[in-house]
Amino acid sequence: MTATVSTFALVQPELALVEEALAATARTEDPIVAPILSLVLPGSGKRLRPALALLAARLGRYPGETAIHMAVGVELLHAASLVHDDVVDETDRRRGEATLFTRVGNAVAVLVGDYLFSQSAARCVATGDLRVIGLFAETLGSMARGQIEEASRESDAHLSLTREAYYQTIWAKTASLFVLACQGGAILSRIPEPQVQALRTYGEKLGLAFQVVDDILDFVGDERALGKPVGSDLRQGVITLPVIYLRDELKDGAFRRTFEQRAVEELVQLVRESEAVERCRAEAAALARESREVLRALDPSPCRDALEALTHYVVHRLR
Amino acid sequence: MTATVSTFALVQPELALVEEALAATARTEDPIVAPILSLVLPGSGKRLRPALALLAARLGRYPGETAIHMAVGVELLHAASLVHDDVVDETDRRRGEATLFTRVGNAVAVLVGDYLFSQSAARCVATGDLRVIGLFAETLGSMARGQIEEASRESDAHLSLTREAYYQTIWAKTASLFVLACQGGAILSRIPEPQVQALRTYGEKLGLAFQVVDDILDFVGDERALGKPVGSDLRQGVITLPVIYLRDELKDGAFRRTFEQRAVEELVQLVRESEAVERCRAEAAALARESREVLRALDPSPCRDALEALTHYVVHRLR
Repeated sequence: MTATVSTFALVQPELALVEEALAATARTEDPIVAPILSLVLPGSGKRLRPALALLAARLGRYPGETAIHMAVGVELLHAASLVHDDVVDETDRRRGEATLFTRVGNAVAVLVGDYLFSQSAARCVATGDLRVIGLFAETLGSMARGQIEEASRESDAHLSLTREAYYQTIWAKTASLFVLACQGGAILSRIPEPQVQALRTYGEKLGLAFQVVDDILDFVGDERALGKPVGSDLRQGVITLPVIYLRDELKDGAFRRTFEQRAVEELVQLVRESEAVERCRAEAAALARESREVLRALDPSPCRDALEALTHYVVHRLR
Repeated sequence: MTATVSTFALVQPELALVEEALAATARTEDPIVAPILSLVLPGSGKRLRPALALLAARLGRYPGETAIHMAVGVELLHAASLVHDDVVDETDRRRGEATLFTRVGNAVAVLVGDYLFSQSAARCVATGDLRVIGLFAETLGSMARGQIEEASRESDAHLSLTREAYYQTIWAKTASLFVLACQGGAILSRIPEPQVQALRTYGEKLGLAFQVVDDILDFVGDERALGKPVGSDLRQGVITLPVIYLRDELKDGAFRRTFEQRAVEELVQLVRESEAVERCRAEAAALARESREVLRALDPSPCRDALEALTHYVVHRLR
């Protein structure tokens, strides 16, 4: 976590404003809505996505309050999507605590997610930048599409999921939000278009690396640190990169039987013992390296260094 | 329905473009998402909200394609909210057909609603008007807040629901979308600000009248025309204006017992035999009259006449 502290240091004052804005969103006047919002905002999140938006916004002429709106908008979109994810997966616990879905039930959780989407939209609109607002709408669409694909895949389609389809899904459901943060911040800082595109690619690669690492942690992570049991994707019938590689290693028939029996513990053990984890680690490291490489398009600056350091942090969550 | 045909006649060519755009939204390239969207778009809706947006946009200098974006955005927002409403209320049937919730289940229906929100946002962004886009975000927030209030009211709070709280809820969940259509269209047509405000008030009053009529129809409507059984709000434990007036007529204790026993048929019968329906009819008619009155702020025009005619149509759905 030391990595985070130092890489976030450059934008610490702005992150405090983001925190305050998130708390203010929860302090709406509505006596019914406010206490529910205070269950999800201010959360204990790492605020990685707001930090990315703020660092990107510092690359050119820092746009002041507008950057805060962007950072808050991105985090609210993240919060909204987590609330709906938990509804979709019927998740009991997240980060070791009961989810909103568990506390208030399906109906209210769906509506609170919708409300958070609206607040996220309002923040993106407050940037006053039509391109950023368009990117917000696009991101919302990508995230929903990625989740629909995952949720409506038949069991058989999961079994035969290709590496390409996996990456397409995690682009849509995870990397797109990193793109919004990085490209959005970059647009607002008015750096030249090729640099904006570099930040887009940076966000994309970093987001993919982040999700691959998340999917590894679901097998090798510490349950206490994860705040949920290992193998939770498999329990949902969802296949991720480590399992794709395990499947390639094993004979298909043996894998299919184990998967169809939902023998989660056994599969987790198989993944741990296989080459799969190492292959995924290497892949996440390669994506992080690629995200660092695109930063060369930018002039050297403390913000560029911080963005570079973040690529290490994202991969080293693994250790 | 003849009323609709003639009042919609002025914007019939544009409504055809809206229909085409809705169908195009369903024809996304995604092979998983497209067939699901085609279950909700193109629907058999009356397209009342797009017609309002288009008529309002014709009051000043008609903004062309931008008005179509507005009308499509409003209808997509409506479609999204219906999908989530059915999730929240676990509704089996709507307009006589199985709901998306029933067909694809809770998880996918939640995500499809989210996707429709994103498409609605994209259309509002395409108007290129920051004020309209801001109004969109505000509307999304109002609608969610109104639904959260209704869904998280305790049974006791429902029983003692005041007329004021009822109006506040239907403003948020229904009238706000009419405001987006009317005020949004008016902003895009660049009429003077006092006229924009008149259109806002028109949308507000018309939306309230529309919902009061809907709530009356839930008691006196024809089940085949409604496409659902009467008394469906009561079955959800939701109290609407006719029930508020019935409660005021009856002794409180008798009412409370019947409500708590969920004796829906009995309560429906009581509402029908009471003065409640007539009081509600009068109230809807008064709201429609008020919505007509604000139109006087506008110069006479065929569009103004059509907006006026719509206020009669909304109330006469009752007959």
